[in-house]
Amino acid sequence: MNLTITDVTLTPILVADPPLLNTQGVHQPYTPRLIVEVVTADGITGVGETYGDAKYLELARPFAERLKGRQVSDLNGLFTVADQVAVDASRVENAVDVGGLRGVQTADKLRLSVVSGFEVACLDALGKALGLPVHTLLGGKVRDAVEYSAYLFYKWAHHPEGVPAEKDDWGAAVDPAGVVEQARRFTERYGFTSFKLKGGVFPPDQEIAAVRALAEAFPGHPLRLDPNGAWSVETSVEVARELGDVLEYLEDPALGTPAMAEVAARTGVPLATNMCVTTFAEIQEAFTKGAVQVVLSDHHYWGGLRNTQQLAAVCRTFGVGVSMHSNTHLGISLAAMTHVAATVPDLHHACDSHYPWQSEDVLTERLTFEGGKVAVSDAPGLGVELDRERLAVLHRRWLDDDGTLRDRDDAAAMRIADPAWVTPAMPRW
Amino acid sequence: MNLTITDVTLTPILVADPPLLNTQGVHQPYTPRLIVEVVTADGITGVGETYGDAKYLELARPFAERLKGRQVSDLNGLFTVADQVAVDASRVENAVDVGGLRGVQTADKLRLSVVSGFEVACLDALGKALGLPVHTLLGGKVRDAVEYSAYLFYKWAHHPEGVPAEKDDWGAAVDPAGVVEQARRFTERYGFTSFKLKGGVFPPDQEIAAVRALAEAFPGHPLRLDPNGAWSVETSVEVARELGDVLEYLEDPALGTPAMAEVAARTGVPLATNMCVTTFAEIQEAFTKGAVQVVLSDHHYWGGLRNTQQLAAVCRTFGVGVSMHSNTHLGISLAAMTHVAATVPDLHHACDSHYPWQSEDVLTERLTFEGGKVAVSDAPGLGVELDRERLAVLHRRWLDDDGTLRDRDDAAAMRIADPAWVTPAMPRW
Repeated sequence: MNLTITDVTLTPILVADPPLLNTQGVHQPYTPRLIVEVVTADGITGVGETYGDAKYLELARPFAERLKGRQVSDLNGLFTVADQVAVDASRVENAVDVGGLRGVQTADKLRLSVVSGFEVACLDALGKALGLPVHTLLGGKVRDAVEYSAYLFYKWAHHPEGVPAEKDDWGAAVDPAGVVEQARRFTERYGFTSFKLKGGVFPPDQEIAAVRALAEAFPGHPLRLDPNGAWSVETSVEVARELGDVLEYLEDPALGTPAMAEVAARTGVPLATNMCVTTFAEIQEAFTKGAVQVVLSDHHYWGGLRNTQQLAAVCRTFGVGVSMHSNTHLGISLAAMTHVAATVPDLHHACDSHYPWQSEDVLTERLTFEGGKVAVSDAPGLGVELDRERLAVLHRRWLDDDGTLRDRDDAAAMRIADPAWVTPAMPRW
Repeated sequence: MNLTITDVTLTPILVADPPLLNTQGVHQPYTPRLIVEVVTADGITGVGETYGDAKYLELARPFAERLKGRQVSDLNGLFTVADQVAVDASRVENAVDVGGLRGVQTADKLRLSVVSGFEVACLDALGKALGLPVHTLLGGKVRDAVEYSAYLFYKWAHHPEGVPAEKDDWGAAVDPAGVVEQARRFTERYGFTSFKLKGGVFPPDQEIAAVRALAEAFPGHPLRLDPNGAWSVETSVEVARELGDVLEYLEDPALGTPAMAEVAARTGVPLATNMCVTTFAEIQEAFTKGAVQVVLSDHHYWGGLRNTQQLAAVCRTFGVGVSMHSNTHLGISLAAMTHVAATVPDLHHACDSHYPWQSEDVLTERLTFEGGKVAVSDAPGLGVELDRERLAVLHRRWLDDDGTLRDRDDAAAMRIADPAWVTPAMPRW
């Protein structure tokens, strides 16, 4: 068995994305992802997936070169490699990232997001080489299926006229009735029983009404609302009061640890986050101040599956809950999320996933939700197989793009429909 | 490859221990350890080691039964098994443990100490089955050798007359000159460059003098003093002031988080601990109050090598240093410590090990220190081999014991030399 990495392939792609609304704007019709393949001396290929925007890609290329000759099993060494790859800090520090929805960009966060794609690919290859599923490489699953929540979005029926885009059959959802209808489809198609509404799109009263409508339509089901930090402390406290009886948690109502801590101190509704705490460096202040009660881990941000386990351990130690955040992703990442989630003992909330919104994938077989859950694969590695024809098609789309879609920009997409649109100043309400 | 556990063997042994002094008394001439073996369906045997006192043994037996039929790779599942094994809480809660030197006993700590022996055995078996060293199963080594410190003890030349015991060639060390002489031997034999003196034996002035003598004999070398919580806050602060210019850290000067926090607040000397923070449950309060600056992990306490990695992640997140504690242990545990230490990125202090004091072992080949370091084995599993003849001899000793040595009791050993000895009330000075 030779675990030496002999080749690494990076394939940037553009995948179809429906017109999902958020406080920054709307999803573009196609969004970039990066597919990572590592190949061992024995000819085993492992796959990973991460953000595909230009600055991730620029960092992934020298990283990939440095991986050759290393062992796929040397997962701790990936962080050493990351430290060796220079990031042009002036380009990233304090810039806003991925549609403004994952907090402020830093060189470290960028590096860890790149590491995660390689770490998952290495784990997949290692698992295949050893004949073991990725969850076993992570210490073994403690559950056979992982529960996900329905990720509800305000959305348009279609992208603006004249813009090349794929069609979707979800219809529009711009009011409480539309949101409930979307939720019904989610339960019918996938069996989800928890619901998260991406908010920050309409004034708080309208979003409160949508959550109330969900609570009526699905009594007793866990509900969440996530305005991506669009609210002031006062607005956050008010929404928490209005919805305190039905919310499982409120996600990132306000931006930054001091604001979140104040909201937390003034309400009994648990606060979840994927914006206030997105790196290990942000934990101490946030936990000490009681700013967050649930950290929504995202293995892409946090530097991979093993770092996600470490984050879960830190949260457990401080009595903070843990669940999973999702940005637009494909099946490779859903498989990775499912493997790591299967190993986290105290995962008390259904994880988020955009996957149902992605009509396109690079796998020969899509992952499926049954009863709102994804079964944990016991096949070697991640248990997924790359569809090279589909990959080539989606890569061709990336190659053919004139550059306008290679960096996610939800505000730019919104300006096509509304030329007067400017990225809202926060807090928006 | 069949990773199913088909057999588990528990072998309690008694190993020779020199007359090392501490604040509770003196080491008995023989001390109990438990050797764990797990055997897979393919006939692969993995070995582990943990505390061997009766209450550990009583818990290990039902644990071993429940392991049969499980996979050696199911490491997370070991904690599920632990939860299923009943501990007679009335026997352990608030009792003092292992010579009084690892803090207050709880059912959880007991369970985790038992888990650790099985976890290491499973990792050893899994590594052998896969052809991978244990450090690779932990994500890969980030260094090729792990540095240890010389663990200096006040000691007698020999155990009391008339008590059956093995001889040692270290001689007595009951004053500064004796301590320096012992340290010289440690450097000559093993190349250690850091020195830890187990204190709490003599009044603080004498121990300050010993550390001063070490500082003169080994200028610039990292020095540590560990009285096992024998001092009041005032005494601790005073010793810290006296030795602040030469101490790398002061270890457990006083007992409990409030006392440690006060000492930390009043001195600039970092405080290390293996008594104040010994479980994940104790971390939040201690870290929030700034009570400790270095946690001395012990994979036996913390529930194994993967928990040790998680502890290191928690410490890193909160800017707290991490190194390793040691109680009396044999080569299996030294190998385990070395594998996990090799994977912890920010291990900035030399680890403690009693191993040089153990003239007996159960391995065909002893581990060696060169330049104060143990080389990280790249052989499959831990890279050690059980000497079954030696194991049988040491087990025979355990069988032949009338029960007086099957539970470590440093105060009882001291009473043989000094019938008036009573376990000192803390703080002693």
